[in-house]
Amino acid sequence: MPGVGSTFGTALRVTTFGESHGGALGAVVDGVPAGIQLSMSAVQAALDRRRPGQSALVSNRREADRVEVVSGLFEGRTLGTPLAMMVRNRDADPRAYAPFRDRYRPSHADLTYAAKHGFRTWQGGGRASARETVARVAAGAVALQVLREVAPVEVVAWVHRVGDVEGRVDEAAVSMPEVDAHAVRCPDAAAAERMAALIREVRRDGDTVGGVVRCVVRGLPQGLGEPVFGKLEAVLAGAMLSIPAAKGFESGSGYAGSRMRGSEHNDLWEPNGTDRGVHTRTNHSGGIQGGISNGMPVTFSVAFKPVATLFTEQPTVDDHGQATTVQPKGRHDPCVLPRAVPIVEAMAALSLCDAMLQQRSRVGLGSVPELGRWPWE
Amino acid sequence: MPGVGSTFGTALRVTTFGESHGGALGAVVDGVPAGIQLSMSAVQAALDRRRPGQSALVSNRREADRVEVVSGLFEGRTLGTPLAMMVRNRDADPRAYAPFRDRYRPSHADLTYAAKHGFRTWQGGGRASARETVARVAAGAVALQVLREVAPVEVVAWVHRVGDVEGRVDEAAVSMPEVDAHAVRCPDAAAAERMAALIREVRRDGDTVGGVVRCVVRGLPQGLGEPVFGKLEAVLAGAMLSIPAAKGFESGSGYAGSRMRGSEHNDLWEPNGTDRGVHTRTNHSGGIQGGISNGMPVTFSVAFKPVATLFTEQPTVDDHGQATTVQPKGRHDPCVLPRAVPIVEAMAALSLCDAMLQQRSRVGLGSVPELGRWPWE
Amino acid sequence: MPGVGSTFGTALRVTTFGESHGGALGAVVDGVPAGIQLSMSAVQAALDRRRPGQSALVSNRREADRVEVVSGLFEGRTLGTPLAMMVRNRDADPRAYAPFRDRYRPSHADLTYAAKHGFRTWQGGGRASARETVARVAAGAVALQVLREVAPVEVVAWVHRVGDVEGRVDEAAVSMPEVDAHAVRCPDAAAAERMAALIREVRRDGDTVGGVVRCVVRGLPQGLGEPVFGKLEAVLAGAMLSIPAAKGFESGSGYAGSRMRGSEHNDLWEPNGTDRGVHTRTNHSGGIQGGISNGMPVTFSVAFKPVATLFTEQPTVDDHGQATTVQPKGRHDPCVLPRAVPIVEAMAALSLCDAMLQQRSRVGLGSVPELGRWPWE
Amino acid sequence: MPGVGSTFGTALRVTTFGESHGGALGAVVDGVPAGIQLSMSAVQAALDRRRPGQSALVSNRREADRVEVVSGLFEGRTLGTPLAMMVRNRDADPRAYAPFRDRYRPSHADLTYAAKHGFRTWQGGGRASARETVARVAAGAVALQVLREVAPVEVVAWVHRVGDVEGRVDEAAVSMPEVDAHAVRCPDAAAAERMAALIREVRRDGDTVGGVVRCVVRGLPQGLGEPVFGKLEAVLAGAMLSIPAAKGFESGSGYAGSRMRGSEHNDLWEPNGTDRGVHTRTNHSGGIQGGISNGMPVTFSVAFKPVATLFTEQPTVDDHGQATTVQPKGRHDPCVLPRAVPIVEAMAALSLCDAMLQQRSRVGLGSVPELGRWPWE
Repeated sequence: MPGVGSTFGTALRVTTFGESHGGALGAVVDGVPAGIQLSMSAVQAALDRRRPGQSALVSNRREADRVEVVSGLFEGRTLGTPLAMMVRNRDADPRAYAPFRDRYRPSHADLTYAAKHGFRTWQGGGRASARETVARVAAGAVALQVLREVAPVEVVAWVHRVGDVEGRVDEAAVSMPEVDAHAVRCPDAAAAERMAALIREVRRDGDTVGGVVRCVVRGLPQGLGEPVFGKLEAVLAGAMLSIPAAKGFESGSGYAGSRMRGSEHNDLWEPNGTDRGVHTRTNHSGGIQGGISNGMPVTFSVAFKPVATLFTEQPTVDDHGQATTVQPKGRHDPCVLPRAVPIVEAMAALSLCDAMLQQRSRVGLGSVPELGRWPWE
Repeated sequence: MPGVGSTFGTALRVTTFGESHGGALGAVVDGVPAGIQLSMSAVQAALDRRRPGQSALVSNRREADRVEVVSGLFEGRTLGTPLAMMVRNRDADPRAYAPFRDRYRPSHADLTYAAKHGFRTWQGGGRASARETVARVAAGAVALQVLREVAPVEVVAWVHRVGDVEGRVDEAAVSMPEVDAHAVRCPDAAAAERMAALIREVRRDGDTVGGVVRCVVRGLPQGLGEPVFGKLEAVLAGAMLSIPAAKGFESGSGYAGSRMRGSEHNDLWEPNGTDRGVHTRTNHSGGIQGGISNGMPVTFSVAFKPVATLFTEQPTVDDHGQATTVQPKGRHDPCVLPRAVPIVEAMAALSLCDAMLQQRSRVGLGSVPELGRWPWE
Repeated sequence: MPGVGSTFGTALRVTTFGESHGGALGAVVDGVPAGIQLSMSAVQAALDRRRPGQSALVSNRREADRVEVVSGLFEGRTLGTPLAMMVRNRDADPRAYAPFRDRYRPSHADLTYAAKHGFRTWQGGGRASARETVARVAAGAVALQVLREVAPVEVVAWVHRVGDVEGRVDEAAVSMPEVDAHAVRCPDAAAAERMAALIREVRRDGDTVGGVVRCVVRGLPQGLGEPVFGKLEAVLAGAMLSIPAAKGFESGSGYAGSRMRGSEHNDLWEPNGTDRGVHTRTNHSGGIQGGISNGMPVTFSVAFKPVATLFTEQPTVDDHGQATTVQPKGRHDPCVLPRAVPIVEAMAALSLCDAMLQQRSRVGLGSVPELGRWPWE
Repeated sequence: MPGVGSTFGTALRVTTFGESHGGALGAVVDGVPAGIQLSMSAVQAALDRRRPGQSALVSNRREADRVEVVSGLFEGRTLGTPLAMMVRNRDADPRAYAPFRDRYRPSHADLTYAAKHGFRTWQGGGRASARETVARVAAGAVALQVLREVAPVEVVAWVHRVGDVEGRVDEAAVSMPEVDAHAVRCPDAAAAERMAALIREVRRDGDTVGGVVRCVVRGLPQGLGEPVFGKLEAVLAGAMLSIPAAKGFESGSGYAGSRMRGSEHNDLWEPNGTDRGVHTRTNHSGGIQGGISNGMPVTFSVAFKPVATLFTEQPTVDDHGQATTVQPKGRHDPCVLPRAVPIVEAMAALSLCDAMLQQRSRVGLGSVPELGRWPWE
């Protein structure tokens, strides 16, 4: 069930909690198989890639984002019970939000949350804040390790475009070290420089800018994805559009592919030289056909709008529907793209790990040695 | 839970069944409130807009697609019990698929379903076929009627682009009769003619072509959408990417918006002249902020790849991983766009009706007269 | 998710539809693994054990209850897609319900459904009628066949008590043919005769009588059941209490066990003579410990209240809250027990098959040959 | 979805985490409506009724069980976001479990968890321990407060029987202060004394004893409960059987009612003297008909087996299937009944609050003023 309130997933179910300016953020991951040697330093490393204050390009909110494991792990191995993880907020500063107490920031969730709940929460973005994604990144880092128990899956995302500055990247080969070589997280060094310059420029203007993250998943087994509403693309699209500021999703060729003819777009199967192995010559399908993985790299992109928090004065309305103005303070990113990279990877890992665990209840049942055995065998 | 196998939705749950070449297709819609005067002719009208053989531009499979209500309705009113609807297949012709029995059609789900199930089904596309969407269109037409019990919601989709031919449409005003004025379902008459010419051309070549559907939803109440994984955009994205051949989704400004600066993209609130009413000057957000509806029109687009079934010979592999060729027969659309319009509308109605019913358990509880009353009051 | 509206199950999801006096009843079973050789005559046989008119002891409503498979099956094998099955109502007679149109039958769901829906449905019991269980029995017969792909599971239920007449049955050995040897479905022949006499007596009086069904499941693998809310006993209890007229559930020693001391109740493990195999000396736990199967027979009972429909006049109130009387007509069972036996078995099979499929995503992932293989291997 | 792993509920979803001997226990409650003034001291009071060391009758593990709210609450009001609560383990003593590291305690979940996970966790009962219910009691105390926003609901449970010692209680009037007047939590003072004596006796013997908790819910609105698998009795049964050591459940007349005739069991409707109000003369139905609340008190009982942990030596097997013995140490209750009372109440509150929130999406939609209003109105 991707998408019931704060819970994501069907066989691997992640429930996140925590507001931007509350005491803590966290995730409970249920459905993790038992006995997996889990590296919590890998989880911390993923959080470190997401946290603010990493570089001059992002928010300077000071959060160490140290993860604490509260349950589900013993002597380094998963217990098969809910894995609960928590990150304390250290530098929450709700006073910065006092000026908006009676007015609605443009393109924020202030008014919509008030409409939803009949109740105004003024301090920070609450659950609509990107700070909520701390919990997802921790959970995603767990999911990736579960996936890797089954297959040598690699999930690599990078900043493809900032504003109109676009990088050129070899999707077949791009690796996380290349992505992280530049603070902007675009592995095309020249483009990365221009992106960084653009981000500095909009920050100077008190403005913000959007862009696109691309992601490739290599090494995924065939057969993942559930027809029909659990298609891999449906799950990934839902996962990605749940990220704050995400406004678009493309699988494989996406919008560009919608301009092609079938004769150009079709991915032709051919033997790959190994014994009975096959692959497709091209990969316009982005590794997914009929909603199910075909063994080729899964590729997709996510479009992010520019951050809504500007440091200039903007007209708006107040709680009584009267015209007024607002000028945000606080610590905000002029561009979410660099920090969105680990978030996209986390949501991909959660989606694919869930599909993998679901698939285990769908495959032929004839040879199920693990069911019914005695535990000591 | 948008997206568990063949079930969609949380408060309104739709389960679809049926293969392209089996006996029937259908939907069970659970969670429909009781006592709603349901027009089954409106359901049939939606199916008529989807069915094959409507025009020379689409598949000539002969299916009347007559809907039968099996349960949940009595004397024209919903019973509050599962509404089951069924459409019999009349013109299924599995023999057309016999040549593919041992080989995999390019960019179809043949190989991926076999990988998933460890079992080859050769006749027709099964659940991966667009024929499966018959059930969704019927369910969506029910959901729309439920939505309209609450607010004067309008859901209008149209063909925005075929290949490189793009229409120009006034999203604020476009209506279903304008969309249906041309068989291609683009309300820009000149563009529609060029689209139709393009479709005829690719059909002549035994080829196919992709495109984009846009959709606008007007009259939606504020406050719909569940943080954080049930955001309206996450649910809509998941819903749309579950449609066969869909490869992209944009909410509001989408990919174009990711090129903008915040100062350009932000939608400024202003009083709308009525007593304490407000609206935004622009609508780059596409009616959704923080994943929740803000009362402005919800706008989005869906990209469709070209249909994979070509009527020319293509190289591929067989069940033993050996190179071979395949040349599809059967009845197929050279372009799914015109028939995708009612499918997009149906998935939008299902998503929004579900969000509306969920919202009813989220609003302030102080004034709940309908709970605890005696039934005759 | 055992228990969301008309859907039961998490990995195997059954959605039922249909009212007692509507056009048809049916079930959609999603999550069935592909490639299973499914015997539809076994499904029909299960329905035949449930249908009215089998003997002089039960309702004489004339329903052949012929099952039609609408989707999910091809050439005798499951497709891995939703298996939809339907049974047409033939002998629905809503006129028998006209006298209750404005009044509430005692201990029926008439008033509660009206309170729930704000809408009165007067013809037949709708979804509250035991006729709804037709769909469950069909689905359960499918689930049992799926279970048997994995292990030689036997599910045997029987009538343990009618009113105060109780049978004595050897739970270790009792078989379905023994159960079906007498129309009352108690394998203790002497008790069965006394039960039948009691049922005839209450029928003569226009009265009804309750009782208890017991059930044993043999051959279940260890390790089924999900902590903590998906414990096997929680799932079975929820499944059984969803059966019309069920008012109690016991697992293993149940209420009697609650009178024991731990030293008496504990089931001691001992080697069973085979290489490293173990069993428990006693089985007060009913095959379930900590909510998870331990390899011993799963045993439980279900209590049924007497049918509410009497053929004598009873005082009640009408739609305006005024005192009146009601005297039911129609065809009803004086005792549901004999026909409850296959319903209890069906719900057990659904619960256990779901647990088994869920377990497949929980076991150690080290050796998962079936994931990632090519389909032809 | 009552019962998916560690998550309970559909509209109100509770996910619990934590092992008996890990760092902490907690619950995330999603779906709580916003703006509710929540008393955390009421939550703490519920925990105080459950915690060990309250009296000489129960375990002397020293846990203050102080609840910390981690998210979802601001200035005393619910935010509509996930309410996360946590209780740290202070007195966990895994060393007490070292002797069982290679052997299976009788009637515990040691072997079944090992079979389920292919992985042995030896320290404490993990998720199978009753310590897990700390999280449920906290969540239940929240649910009760939400229910009370709608109606003056009272949930009162008490110890009905310990071993063969049974109390006599007026279910129409019994109140929590009466229940808590004696440490054994039976409001029949004379019976309470005999129960306490029995508990002291079995403790002296190193033995344990079971019993029955009864519960009454007054003031519940009509119309709660979802047909057919979400019937109130199905949900309550599943909730109760998920409590450790629970082996039986009865709704209303339960097993005793299964001995009655319909003429005796039927609850006759009659006017209650107020304007158009009605009630039933008797309440064998236990306030539920057709799975839906009828406005009368909801009554049910739960049977608990004797605690499996004895302080005498018992035969068992080890990890290699060889006969051995085991003699538990640690701190355990000789009888869970007194502490089960607040757990039963908590699960009842969770079940009923979930049903109430679900019902809000089922009632007639004609008058939904709260949808579509501006937030400041």
